Amino acid sequence: MNVEIINIGDELLIGQVVNTNASWMAEQLNLEGFRVHQVTIISDEREHILEALTLAAQRAEIILISGGIGPTRDDITKHTLCEYFNTRLVFNEEAFRDIETLFPPHRYPMTESNRQQAALPESCIPIPNRHGTARGMWFETPERGTIYVSMPGVPFEMKAMMTNAVIPKLKDRFSPGVICHKTILTQGVGESFLAEKIAAWETALPANIRLAYLPQPGIVRLRLTGTGTDEPTVNKQISHEVETLASLISEYIFGYDDDTLEAIVGRLLTGKKLTLATAESCTGGAIAQMITAVAGSSAYFKGSVVAYANDVKEKLLGVEPASIEEHGAVSEAVVTAMALGAQKQMGADYVIATSGIAGPEGGTAGKPVGTTWIAIASPGAVFARHFMLGDNRERNIRRTSLQALNMLRKIL
Amino acid sequence: MNVEIINIGDELLIGQVVNTNASWMAEQLNLEGFRVHQVTIISDEREHILEALTLAAQRAEIILISGGIGPTRDDITKHTLCEYFNTRLVFNEEAFRDIETLFPPHRYPMTESNRQQAALPESCIPIPNRHGTARGMWFETPERGTIYVSMPGVPFEMKAMMTNAVIPKLKDRFSPGVICHKTILTQGVGESFLAEKIAAWETALPANIRLAYLPQPGIVRLRLTGTGTDEPTVNKQISHEVETLASLISEYIFGYDDDTLEAIVGRLLTGKKLTLATAESCTGGAIAQMITAVAGSSAYFKGSVVAYANDVKEKLLGVEPASIEEHGAVSEAVVTAMALGAQKQMGADYVIATSGIAGPEGGTAGKPVGTTWIAIASPGAVFARHFMLGDNRERNIRRTSLQALNMLRKIL
Repeated sequence: MNVEIINIGDELLIGQVVNTNASWMAEQLNLEGFRVHQVTIISDEREHILEALTLAAQRAEIILISGGIGPTRDDITKHTLCEYFNTRLVFNEEAFRDIETLFPPHRYPMTESNRQQAALPESCIPIPNRHGTARGMWFETPERGTIYVSMPGVPFEMKAMMTNAVIPKLKDRFSPGVICHKTILTQGVGESFLAEKIAAWETALPANIRLAYLPQPGIVRLRLTGTGTDEPTVNKQISHEVETLASLISEYIFGYDDDTLEAIVGRLLTGKKLTLATAESCTGGAIAQMITAVAGSSAYFKGSVVAYANDVKEKLLGVEPASIEEHGAVSEAVVTAMALGAQKQMGADYVIATSGIAGPEGGTAGKPVGTTWIAIASPGAVFARHFMLGDNRERNIRRTSLQALNMLRKIL
Repeated sequence: MNVEIINIGDELLIGQVVNTNASWMAEQLNLEGFRVHQVTIISDEREHILEALTLAAQRAEIILISGGIGPTRDDITKHTLCEYFNTRLVFNEEAFRDIETLFPPHRYPMTESNRQQAALPESCIPIPNRHGTARGMWFETPERGTIYVSMPGVPFEMKAMMTNAVIPKLKDRFSPGVICHKTILTQGVGESFLAEKIAAWETALPANIRLAYLPQPGIVRLRLTGTGTDEPTVNKQISHEVETLASLISEYIFGYDDDTLEAIVGRLLTGKKLTLATAESCTGGAIAQMITAVAGSSAYFKGSVVAYANDVKEKLLGVEPASIEEHGAVSEAVVTAMALGAQKQMGADYVIATSGIAGPEGGTAGKPVGTTWIAIASPGAVFARHFMLGDNRERNIRRTSLQALNMLRKIL
């Protein structure tokens, strides 16, 4: 089944908004076994919408449209759909009652343009929207069986509609077969290195199982997708392949599917009733920020000392001035002292400490930009590791943060 | 001049990559007075590329293509362009010498597929690429004068090519007239509130000056675009309108164009040779992370105490346990004590302190989720302000961070 996505909106064509809707829709459809053939971004203009619909229908069986159905100027899409499907707007009582619930009395007045959102093309099947006034609209052309679905452009309204209604209905209708996924998450290793390590295994994969590399800064995700007719069989195949893969690259795997390092570390600490603190120099609070972005992190996170200046390292973390003098702030001695100092000062079981030269300035011949030390203190022990990263400040901070969280995860 | 953008790449159609190229290209073109009529995302397939080129040429005078010209499997685009323009690949010595410089001897071996990147369509004008092996290719059809430019899909390669070659050449060719912009940056105020405040001014704008609202979480940017034939005249008009606008909403403006709050605060501190520290509870290090993301921030940033646990507030910032007991951690008394404690402990001239309930848990009837206190300590003074934010953890952290940096900026 070929799908085409049409995103309507002038704001997408002046670069005001990045079109994240298309990639999200494409990913979800792909996960369910539908193939996206083309994405077209067009303006809020009648002729342009009619042309795009006509061309898409020549190439695809399913056409998903987002945008242009807001309560204001944009409602041209609804009228244009009426013209395209040769139908007319009728007032839909059920849709009106749904829309009314979005306007609690005495809080937001309901305007006439909001009321008009209940006027829908007669030939469409409306799709509810709990988050906004625009209904989704499902059309089918009787002669060719082509399906068109119009959805709002607001990402969370569109996503709820896709997840709750559109994808289940498309699966019912087209039964694209069983499709199962498992994603393996790795840290601290490049895509090409991984590819080499697993080349023989990848070549030997059964024909119904595909591998995709999904790299992000500091992290490479490996997604296995299996297709078939019987779900338990496909799942068993996937599990078997994941097991083999895991045995080849076990030291780089930190989790599966939607896991994040900060959430995994949080779960491990919660489970053991242990606490964490950080002492950050080069990462400048980035690790604390990642940890505290997890809801509920106050249960295990004591806090952080971001010790950018040397006197802060001395005063708040008890690092010896002589040690900074002798070894420099970016050194095994100092990063270890920072970790132990934070452990004592904040009374935490575990501490992550970082010290490095993030760049672009501050490098020397002996310690070029990218030189980084990470220390982990645990009850009764501390160790440090040295890394040579690149010359990009943002990427160095990100990679150091991920590396440090993964080092902590391994000893937890 | 109508422009169409064609992005080629299977990775865009499976949702693996968000298509940021299209929005960046559209924004740059828009800033120079070119109108983007449509964006089309297609697969790495010969027929699909030929069809997309044919259709785009019926609608636009300028067609910008990105993606599909890498050294490996993707080079189908180059062959397909030869077919479309009825030309052939010829080896380009100059391009080869440029490519060679990317492979320093004894470091990276140059492969045959890299060498093949110097084979270019005979009828194109090659565009240099300092960052990669793929040349850009500029084509013109003699009969209709349509311009086609093929560029790499790697964002920083494409961006350098657009900025250094493609946009200047297009401007030379089409002289789209004078177009000037000025962007006003506001913080802490909603789009609709601003719109109401400046409605009369906006209505009275001259016909050649347009206003665009560009909202981001916590920040609304207002962009004025003026067109005309004489640059000094248009710039003078824009300056005049910016002045009037600034007088209407002066209390919300923090900067212009590409400024950021963290960079402005950094410049102000550097200029006055003053230092800064932060004491963060609810923001969890996010403010320190923003400040230290600015290169050179070690010159004025002493550090931060992320005091998530109450005992860290007491031990490292000297907050009185009795004060936390009496007022709660989220209170004027405690946030003020945090600011003063950090000022003393880290020896900083200025301190930003935050304490709040970011959510989704932790709210009470008296202090619901979103309750936030921000304090600013300066030499010899301290003050605190209370904010009621929403129930989204991520947005609360972001809005608190921006608000705090802006409060500091105002007193600097």
